[in-house]
Amino acid sequence: MIIGAGPAGLVLSHLLHLQGVESVVLEARDRTYVESRVRAGVLEHGTMELLRETGVGARMDAEGLAHGGTELRVDGRSHHVDFAELTGKSIVVYGQQEVVKDLIGRRLADSGDLRFEVGDVQIHDEDTDHPRVTYTHEGTAQSLAADWVVGADGFHGSSRAHVPGQVFDRQYPFAWLGILAHAAPSSAELIYAKHDRGFALHSMRSPVVTRNYLQVHPDADLADWSDERIWDELSTRLAGEDGFTLTRGAIFDKGITGMRSFVHEPMRHGRLLLAGDAAHIVPPTGAKGMNLAIADVRVLSHALGQWAATGSTEGLDAYSDTALARVWRTTHFSWWMTSMLHRFDGYDATSTPFDERVQLSQLRYTVSSRAAMTTLAENYVGLPFTTGWSYR
Amino acid sequence: MIIGAGPAGLVLSHLLHLQGVESVVLEARDRTYVESRVRAGVLEHGTMELLRETGVGARMDAEGLAHGGTELRVDGRSHHVDFAELTGKSIVVYGQQEVVKDLIGRRLADSGDLRFEVGDVQIHDEDTDHPRVTYTHEGTAQSLAADWVVGADGFHGSSRAHVPGQVFDRQYPFAWLGILAHAAPSSAELIYAKHDRGFALHSMRSPVVTRNYLQVHPDADLADWSDERIWDELSTRLAGEDGFTLTRGAIFDKGITGMRSFVHEPMRHGRLLLAGDAAHIVPPTGAKGMNLAIADVRVLSHALGQWAATGSTEGLDAYSDTALARVWRTTHFSWWMTSMLHRFDGYDATSTPFDERVQLSQLRYTVSSRAAMTTLAENYVGLPFTTGWSYR
Repeated sequence: MIIGAGPAGLVLSHLLHLQGVESVVLEARDRTYVESRVRAGVLEHGTMELLRETGVGARMDAEGLAHGGTELRVDGRSHHVDFAELTGKSIVVYGQQEVVKDLIGRRLADSGDLRFEVGDVQIHDEDTDHPRVTYTHEGTAQSLAADWVVGADGFHGSSRAHVPGQVFDRQYPFAWLGILAHAAPSSAELIYAKHDRGFALHSMRSPVVTRNYLQVHPDADLADWSDERIWDELSTRLAGEDGFTLTRGAIFDKGITGMRSFVHEPMRHGRLLLAGDAAHIVPPTGAKGMNLAIADVRVLSHALGQWAATGSTEGLDAYSDTALARVWRTTHFSWWMTSMLHRFDGYDATSTPFDERVQLSQLRYTVSSRAAMTTLAENYVGLPFTTGWSYR
Repeated sequence: MIIGAGPAGLVLSHLLHLQGVESVVLEARDRTYVESRVRAGVLEHGTMELLRETGVGARMDAEGLAHGGTELRVDGRSHHVDFAELTGKSIVVYGQQEVVKDLIGRRLADSGDLRFEVGDVQIHDEDTDHPRVTYTHEGTAQSLAADWVVGADGFHGSSRAHVPGQVFDRQYPFAWLGILAHAAPSSAELIYAKHDRGFALHSMRSPVVTRNYLQVHPDADLADWSDERIWDELSTRLAGEDGFTLTRGAIFDKGITGMRSFVHEPMRHGRLLLAGDAAHIVPPTGAKGMNLAIADVRVLSHALGQWAATGSTEGLDAYSDTALARVWRTTHFSWWMTSMLHRFDGYDATSTPFDERVQLSQLRYTVSSRAAMTTLAENYVGLPFTTGWSYR
């Protein structure tokens, strides 16, 4: 039983099916909604390989934008981080909603049991060997017995409340104002810009749609941000000595999102297992949210597959620790990228001039040392799945 | 005119002499004092090369302890950082007082003008082309005219007060309790240990003298730290799964030192130039203080040599910016090492469980990624003297 038809829930359902383990996926929204919900858009090397190797990567390979690197712009100077040369790996820009479409299509083709628009989902008896989930569907109350329940219902889902544990939390003193626009990308790669006026990111979804972000105050009001002001500010922050020009276009989506790091430990209670945003969220700076969710369920699918095949709970008993090792690596990286690239002066009352100088020194080192740039690159494309560490 | 016969002042005087530029060095203490003052003990690769290439490295080469790496101990597990393999460079353990002895000997052999036990040193007219320094010597008031005055009189010296500017400061919420003991080193390399009880460092000065440090509260009282308690605590924090045993011996020096990062910008006012601790201090974690002081005067000696040979102030005009670029790189590194290796819980009221997890994730990454370990190694052995950056 999987609660939530986002990337975590759908990839898990797919990976389980490939091992001959069937699952039911419950989703509160309708299919159209989840297939058009714009979220993340960067797939790590390992995520890309997983989708490809499990037969759901054809459209990603055809339509995704392969990126061998990214740009860091500091004080208007551009620095190329060459993922391919530094790590031998790369990323692909492919919207989360496209991944979801591909997975839903594949699950339905494989006769997967996906139930949309279910209401009032409740987990029962998760601390026994016979958990149940009740929900309503088309006005009818339903009850489903399950061997295991996976809470993949996102940060605002109800699953996490069933798992006693500890929260680790960091709220950043700024937000991102994000837009989607009908405009061709102005760069072949993403541009991360650290500017005196604040952070900006130039990104893209397709050859005709760009996605751009501005660091703003958490209490910023969209009403104060006309399209023109947004484009002007993006142009200023993204400007470079290379004469970069930002292509403008019609903005068709606009929003302000808070920035937060959040980890809930552990990721399991009895027969309830958490995956993805239900257990942790990262600020979007490192483009890690969806990748980390898929990393969780990769581990979880092996553990559930082992249990289904042999009855052993060895993998399931190790799941939380194994997943959290990567969660904390990724949480550190996302925190590091966020801390390095944003302006804190004027946002964080505790920020000192010393902190600002140290931040700038970190950034300049990162773009001038091959070793430091490699640490950024190897985390960005995604570290391999081996670690000798427990997470604590 | 150079104020201060520490490593900065003495190396500068020596480098100037090699360019045919004579200088007077004024020192408040007597010769015996500065030749026995125990401070830093690790020489970067470049510092080592500079001393060797300028003819003051013979005893260092004979008596210094060459180290090709260091140990990081985390949760009792030991990780070797192989400087030689990662960077092609190494360090040498050789006490600051030995460097000072070698330099004083050489300056006197070269008929250098070193004046010890001078009192009431005062700088005058530093914002004119004719600065002067007044002081007393053996009860007599003296006045010396100079072309340039270099303030190399340490953190507590008076030179800095003559340079208007801005201070960048960070006081750490802990101190180091350091001991010198008649005991053979227990390890061929330095051991930096992150332990639940706090940081510890096992270091050495010679084959028969060890130097060890413990993180303690800034208000810790030496009276509470018997020799036995110190050894017990060191043994606990430095313990490893490799069965490491700390050799004990008679403690002949004991002290508690606060931890601080401090940078004064700029490093020049008129004809007064600051060098070394007079302008900046770093916490000792990265073993950078003396190396940075010598890096300052390397730049400064070229600038003064250029001025003496051609009358051009180009190098002197660039001195502050050039030196500060390295100062901030080093300040960041020392801050980073300090932040990664110390315990903050119980020391810093603003430290959160999130911060602790992120710190641990950083540390585990550093010892498990070759790229991350290389960033530590290349900073520890000392980055080369090239930077395309201004410091701001």
